[in-house]
Amino acid sequence: MTENNLRVERDSLGEVMVPANALYGAQTQRAVLNFPISGMRPYRAFIWSMALIKRAAAEVNHAVGLLDEQRAKAIIQAGEEVMAGQWNDHFVVDPFQAGAGTSHNMNTNEVIANRATQILGGQIGEYLVHPNDHVNMSQSTNDTIPTAIRLGCLWRLDELTFTIQKLIEALKEKAIEFDDIVKSGRTHLQDAVPVRLGQEFGAYARAVDRDRERIERAAEGLRRLGIGGTATGTGLNAHPEYHPRMVEVLSRVSGLKLYTSDNLFESMQSMADMADFSASLRTLALTLTRIANDLRLLSSGPATGLDEIRLPPVQPGSSIMPGKVNPVLAEMLNMAMYHVIGLDTAVAMASQAGQLELNVMMPIIAHDLFEMMHVMIGAISAFTDKCVVGIKANRAKAEGWLARNTIVVTALNPIIGYLAGAALVKEALSRDLTVQEVALEKVREGALKHKDTGQPLTEDDIRAVFSDMRKLTEGGLFGGGGGG
Amino acid sequence: MTENNLRVERDSLGEVMVPANALYGAQTQRAVLNFPISGMRPYRAFIWSMALIKRAAAEVNHAVGLLDEQRAKAIIQAGEEVMAGQWNDHFVVDPFQAGAGTSHNMNTNEVIANRATQILGGQIGEYLVHPNDHVNMSQSTNDTIPTAIRLGCLWRLDELTFTIQKLIEALKEKAIEFDDIVKSGRTHLQDAVPVRLGQEFGAYARAVDRDRERIERAAEGLRRLGIGGTATGTGLNAHPEYHPRMVEVLSRVSGLKLYTSDNLFESMQSMADMADFSASLRTLALTLTRIANDLRLLSSGPATGLDEIRLPPVQPGSSIMPGKVNPVLAEMLNMAMYHVIGLDTAVAMASQAGQLELNVMMPIIAHDLFEMMHVMIGAISAFTDKCVVGIKANRAKAEGWLARNTIVVTALNPIIGYLAGAALVKEALSRDLTVQEVALEKVREGALKHKDTGQPLTEDDIRAVFSDMRKLTEGGLFGGGGGG
Amino acid sequence: MTENNLRVERDSLGEVMVPANALYGAQTQRAVLNFPISGMRPYRAFIWSMALIKRAAAEVNHAVGLLDEQRAKAIIQAGEEVMAGQWNDHFVVDPFQAGAGTSHNMNTNEVIANRATQILGGQIGEYLVHPNDHVNMSQSTNDTIPTAIRLGCLWRLDELTFTIQKLIEALKEKAIEFDDIVKSGRTHLQDAVPVRLGQEFGAYARAVDRDRERIERAAEGLRRLGIGGTATGTGLNAHPEYHPRMVEVLSRVSGLKLYTSDNLFESMQSMADMADFSASLRTLALTLTRIANDLRLLSSGPATGLDEIRLPPVQPGSSIMPGKVNPVLAEMLNMAMYHVIGLDTAVAMASQAGQLELNVMMPIIAHDLFEMMHVMIGAISAFTDKCVVGIKANRAKAEGWLARNTIVVTALNPIIGYLAGAALVKEALSRDLTVQEVALEKVREGALKHKDTGQPLTEDDIRAVFSDMRKLTEGGLFGGGGGG
Amino acid sequence: MTENNLRVERDSLGEVMVPANALYGAQTQRAVLNFPISGMRPYRAFIWSMALIKRAAAEVNHAVGLLDEQRAKAIIQAGEEVMAGQWNDHFVVDPFQAGAGTSHNMNTNEVIANRATQILGGQIGEYLVHPNDHVNMSQSTNDTIPTAIRLGCLWRLDELTFTIQKLIEALKEKAIEFDDIVKSGRTHLQDAVPVRLGQEFGAYARAVDRDRERIERAAEGLRRLGIGGTATGTGLNAHPEYHPRMVEVLSRVSGLKLYTSDNLFESMQSMADMADFSASLRTLALTLTRIANDLRLLSSGPATGLDEIRLPPVQPGSSIMPGKVNPVLAEMLNMAMYHVIGLDTAVAMASQAGQLELNVMMPIIAHDLFEMMHVMIGAISAFTDKCVVGIKANRAKAEGWLARNTIVVTALNPIIGYLAGAALVKEALSRDLTVQEVALEKVREGALKHKDTGQPLTEDDIRAVFSDMRKLTEGGLFGGGGGG
Repeated sequence: MTENNLRVERDSLGEVMVPANALYGAQTQRAVLNFPISGMRPYRAFIWSMALIKRAAAEVNHAVGLLDEQRAKAIIQAGEEVMAGQWNDHFVVDPFQAGAGTSHNMNTNEVIANRATQILGGQIGEYLVHPNDHVNMSQSTNDTIPTAIRLGCLWRLDELTFTIQKLIEALKEKAIEFDDIVKSGRTHLQDAVPVRLGQEFGAYARAVDRDRERIERAAEGLRRLGIGGTATGTGLNAHPEYHPRMVEVLSRVSGLKLYTSDNLFESMQSMADMADFSASLRTLALTLTRIANDLRLLSSGPATGLDEIRLPPVQPGSSIMPGKVNPVLAEMLNMAMYHVIGLDTAVAMASQAGQLELNVMMPIIAHDLFEMMHVMIGAISAFTDKCVVGIKANRAKAEGWLARNTIVVTALNPIIGYLAGAALVKEALSRDLTVQEVALEKVREGALKHKDTGQPLTEDDIRAVFSDMRKLTEGGLFGGGGGG
Repeated sequence: MTENNLRVERDSLGEVMVPANALYGAQTQRAVLNFPISGMRPYRAFIWSMALIKRAAAEVNHAVGLLDEQRAKAIIQAGEEVMAGQWNDHFVVDPFQAGAGTSHNMNTNEVIANRATQILGGQIGEYLVHPNDHVNMSQSTNDTIPTAIRLGCLWRLDELTFTIQKLIEALKEKAIEFDDIVKSGRTHLQDAVPVRLGQEFGAYARAVDRDRERIERAAEGLRRLGIGGTATGTGLNAHPEYHPRMVEVLSRVSGLKLYTSDNLFESMQSMADMADFSASLRTLALTLTRIANDLRLLSSGPATGLDEIRLPPVQPGSSIMPGKVNPVLAEMLNMAMYHVIGLDTAVAMASQAGQLELNVMMPIIAHDLFEMMHVMIGAISAFTDKCVVGIKANRAKAEGWLARNTIVVTALNPIIGYLAGAALVKEALSRDLTVQEVALEKVREGALKHKDTGQPLTEDDIRAVFSDMRKLTEGGLFGGGGGG
Repeated sequence: MTENNLRVERDSLGEVMVPANALYGAQTQRAVLNFPISGMRPYRAFIWSMALIKRAAAEVNHAVGLLDEQRAKAIIQAGEEVMAGQWNDHFVVDPFQAGAGTSHNMNTNEVIANRATQILGGQIGEYLVHPNDHVNMSQSTNDTIPTAIRLGCLWRLDELTFTIQKLIEALKEKAIEFDDIVKSGRTHLQDAVPVRLGQEFGAYARAVDRDRERIERAAEGLRRLGIGGTATGTGLNAHPEYHPRMVEVLSRVSGLKLYTSDNLFESMQSMADMADFSASLRTLALTLTRIANDLRLLSSGPATGLDEIRLPPVQPGSSIMPGKVNPVLAEMLNMAMYHVIGLDTAVAMASQAGQLELNVMMPIIAHDLFEMMHVMIGAISAFTDKCVVGIKANRAKAEGWLARNTIVVTALNPIIGYLAGAALVKEALSRDLTVQEVALEKVREGALKHKDTGQPLTEDDIRAVFSDMRKLTEGGLFGGGGGG
Repeated sequence: MTENNLRVERDSLGEVMVPANALYGAQTQRAVLNFPISGMRPYRAFIWSMALIKRAAAEVNHAVGLLDEQRAKAIIQAGEEVMAGQWNDHFVVDPFQAGAGTSHNMNTNEVIANRATQILGGQIGEYLVHPNDHVNMSQSTNDTIPTAIRLGCLWRLDELTFTIQKLIEALKEKAIEFDDIVKSGRTHLQDAVPVRLGQEFGAYARAVDRDRERIERAAEGLRRLGIGGTATGTGLNAHPEYHPRMVEVLSRVSGLKLYTSDNLFESMQSMADMADFSASLRTLALTLTRIANDLRLLSSGPATGLDEIRLPPVQPGSSIMPGKVNPVLAEMLNMAMYHVIGLDTAVAMASQAGQLELNVMMPIIAHDLFEMMHVMIGAISAFTDKCVVGIKANRAKAEGWLARNTIVVTALNPIIGYLAGAALVKEALSRDLTVQEVALEKVREGALKHKDTGQPLTEDDIRAVFSDMRKLTEGGLFGGGGGG
């Protein structure tokens, strides 16, 4: 739209100049002028969800006899256009705006009113459909904004859980692919008894899966809508059937599972459902931070680190070293998750700041929750596709580490006992040999006996134990003392 | 115990002097010397839960034929004594200790070994029952500590939810008691349409109730135990039946609902269940912060604030003003909740710090989670008993505020319309009258007509509207434009 | 640029298709493809500061004889064009990108190389000036990115402190304007001894001023540059004079006060200067949260709240209440500060995640720090201009509250003593009179005597005390017992 | 004291039973009953600092003629006894207590009043010296508590900075000790150009030193005392000379550098100095988290990790592996720092919660700040003494890693150029040889020439380059392309 052409609009504070072709009006324009804060615009989820509410309200208001059919139809069409993303450019209010989100509500009301006016054959600014009287009918900022936050989060939920599910599947596939790679376990980053690389990846998959469950469980709390509480939760100005009908229409139009609220006051004054949902995203962020750290550690080196896995190269890591490839996707994931954890702090602080009938900090809760989801979807998706699916195991290195780990003596414990094992370790360490080498030597000298029978052990006995280190990772061995 | 009398103990690093009567031994003593950090001791929940594990392990190890009956019985008895709190003074390791909690595990092993030795007729230090070989049998720090954190939290869960439930009940009673007090709603701290004081308290009750549900739901994740994973999750050194049998015995002895783990690696390396539980406590803390703030605001004054409710006086508020009574319990609750929120940050940071097979940051997760629960139980309980149950409404003040609120014009909207209402407000404000006064004056002048019929309104029409302001809070009025 | 026209570029991983007119090249394009995370672009400060480094490096490399004059001049010109904002559209890498910021570094190298190539008469992609060999000469991502973060923050520092200074001035002006409005103090939100409204605003000004000092002090830590440490802090590949000369040139070109580093390793591996700077922004955010809360409280009502000040109306607050004006700028400030506090959490988490020679989490530190500054500048500026400067005191309300506050009895304490004062308060409260009214009555009855002389007091004595309540706010009265 | 023997006390709310021998009285007892929250007691720093204020106030009140000499002397003596720790057991109020800290103030007033009464020959409860009239004279909770927080932190500051200084010295000594160990640098945990182990430790020392400077700098803000503001900052009831005289006496008695406040209102309502001090502790905590992580990584293995350094063994790491020694002190430090970071969150939240004249959340700010300092002192001290001073380098491992790192080719770049170097790397990697081995082979074949002169290189040329890898860490080599 050409900013040079302006039209005059008015509201209760007087005249305002608005870009001639803007579908928004006076109150949006005031908000643009009042809040030149960040230059950011609302997330699509917030535009979609507010338009959905307006569209549903038009249907319900008409059904209960408060709104004529012509206007209702026009609002429904205009709302659906906004939902489809046709008028994104007309949503221009900074996320740092009026408390409660009045400006975003009015932006939505004005865009839909003007577009509906056009649909009815009128001109922008003519307001055959009025932003307050018709589009905002039976509504208040105070009940539409919290409802829109809930709907917006649910709108992106499928995308998020689908993305997480893809990561889980990729990790599971790696768990299968790496199932036969026996490696040294590490606890305290110190040598520990063996595990299989597949077991590590299987545990990652399981951990992410549990976090996904938690996110879906937390999202249940978002499905309970306070729409119809209007300004203070009492539902003043809304038809008695408005609340349940709205939930029904919203559910039908969006395809989302939604519930009525059993306490409209609580639904309005409490942001705990949002704080809880945010926390569930934080828990996943903590898990992914841990996994990204592990992958970077396991792929460290290659020459000077663990090098048990190789992450797929996606871009040169250095302009000085041709071979250098950094774990860039895992690093990106770390950073994205720190950002998500930070935004969770903001959501938590905003959530405790409600006062009496309302929590006016909703716009930042909305913006930061949508950003958390948006960044998570992008980061997890890229991490999965460009990193996890291409991870290769470095079996030689993994097995090489294990061979040097004197803790493999544990495999001998059931036949030689703890003390004899400790002696082998001591000697192996002092002579820089592996435990197996020392054990075979001792057997040849006849110096190693079965702890219970007292029978001298054979080289075959020893080799049998070491030939399948996998047994050490399968939970079938026991009888020794405590571990750890 | 007299610190002067010492006995000599040894471990793999050499000799250590231990107080002669101490039930703990060499490794505990080393930890005492190594970690003179805070002077704090473990929370009871952590002592109880570790002892429970030792007690259960003795039973299971005996049942699968690994531990003789005599020792098993002695460990069981000693464990139960520790669980009962008899030997609290012998748990002396600072919460800031060895990673993974090795020192707390060894403290428990040693106390139980010595006490079991005594039960078998031996002397402290004689170790007829050995800390590692017998008490710690089939276990590792790495699987017992996370299991103990889970059990310890569940142990206090009933007390916490009972405490929360009492708060909910108290708030609900106030909701009933205050149901007929119609007052001015306030959104943005600005005059808004009426609500009833009971509705506010009912919403508080509902908000706390939802947070309680969330805590219980998050606690479900704690019921899945990784006991039996031993050092790295593979279960090496533990009997194949050990894991399910342990869960069974732990459940039977504690009376807690508990589940086996479907992935012992995940159960060991991931602290996400704890982070999630911590987050559920944070959500409640955010809600209680908000409610405490509201109560302090509603009881502000009395002369220079809202004074709609009176909190019970529990101590003089000032040495200079005889009548001054501060909202001390609500303030205490605020502070307790800030502390809880801070500890949640610590738990979250510790949770993301796992590396490969283990998260060694478990001791601080344990300590801070137990402190969160402990402080919450104390704070909510005192707040409920000494504050909430004694709150009195100040009906006169509440109704006085409402009468001055021009927004009561909303009640006239259905009969006079928005524009006429706005005119009344304007006049009322400029002449410092109430809206009702102006409306009656207009009626007398015949200047106020029904918006639809055009019929002049009567004084009775006006009085009928204002006689029952409660109607404005019941959701039955509608037909005007949008609100908020 | 038309995305349809593509050109082929290559790097060590192979061929890449790049938009034909893009000044960036292969590595940037790979980053675009690898990191489709948030859709966000780098903040201007980050583009400016990286270009500044390239421009300075060209000058220094030429001066020490490593770069020919022609290329140096071309790089300098291209760098200055980027600094001036001419090629912003060519900076296309998502903030969630390769660890350490390799992609942003390469984006800068490629844009400047291509632009310098054009300046030398070449074509895009011809690389008469090479991104690595010439533009990145003597540099590494690892020393340029932390240097760029420092320079970028310092670049916006003046704007930030100027903005804060304007707020301080506005608050100070209000302190003068409101100096003679004596009002009730409130502690614990309860009636307390009087203060002047000007004293409250003066304290706000002082608090913000101290936070400004802290920010400037923390910024000192940013002035010490690690440029020249190259890849690991050793300065390998950089001329021995490179480090001090770079600091000199950077300082001259930018006009910023800058220092050399006394430990290039620490300058590279530690993000503590950034965490500290972030924390100083957090402290201001905490102060502004408090002040915004106070202003919303003081302007609450108007009918049902304190209403001691009136914030300027900037937009209609409600579609239902013509007079309703919400404290939208203060609310916006609250939300902006919660966001800032959240981002500080992200910066802190990223700062602790350094490993060995490098902290690869720098891109999120950069992005979130720049966002903190950007949002603060916008939010504080709008808050000052559209809210603080227009605040009006409501003297009548403020004085009315004070008159009702029985604590004014404190003014009588020096002449009648604590006990007699307490009795007056008790009677005033029970009879719903002001303390002054009761005191005058008592004087008339001859029932009020001077506490030391025992002489009966006169009405004039009483009136003298109350005629200038201001005295109670000036610290000259003393002799009574303790307060609080 | 025997709890069975009780005495009766009264305050404005009525009678209270107090333990007969308790030096505290009615109001403390009420607080004990009102706040059975955590069972914790105040930190010594808080007892000391409050007693110091009482002691100083007695001196000043006497000097300005408000308090008789006998009582002043008794209060001074009693105060000094409390400061010396003689009556710690009589400080019994939970940290989670009345807002602003009224209960801690009254606890101090009562203990000193009773003890002073005893000094004057009276009985406990006789109050020859009165808690409010004499001990609390010219004071309010509202100005004493923030002053006490400041003084308490400063009291422990020397101990904290001394502890930090010892860590710095220990790290510096290691930097010298390890100065000649050339090792592989690692960035992104990937092979990078060499550094010396001493350089790493030197950078740690420098980083901690800068954080120490920051803490001392932040502590400057604590030296400005608001004592004398009394209840709302106006200084009502305090002698005009009270404020400056108090600062003088407090400084003289404590030996601390202290300043008067230029705005008593700001000093009372703002906790920003505390939030800033807390943040400076957080910055150190972030640095120490990083360093502890690095030490655990460098000492990982020994068989399956980097093993470049060995931390001193202080306790057995495992009951199953005789040789296993975990990095327990570093892990403890990690946990302590997470706890500190968490408490900083609590302090920050409490700091923003001030309202109008007062921030009533001071008790939790006090408790958590003192705990942060206490835990830091203990944790850093143990970490230094039991870990850092005993760290040994593993030169063989460090040099072994470096030899395998193909990046040592960088040392050849100045004579053979980037492309020839890359070819060497490629061949070395594919044939599993070191770069030096391949280079020598090529030289023997005459296949390696000087990049500028074209002269064939000799084995000596090659050996010279590799004989002193240290050169690569000294910044003297340059001339190649960009790095990183």
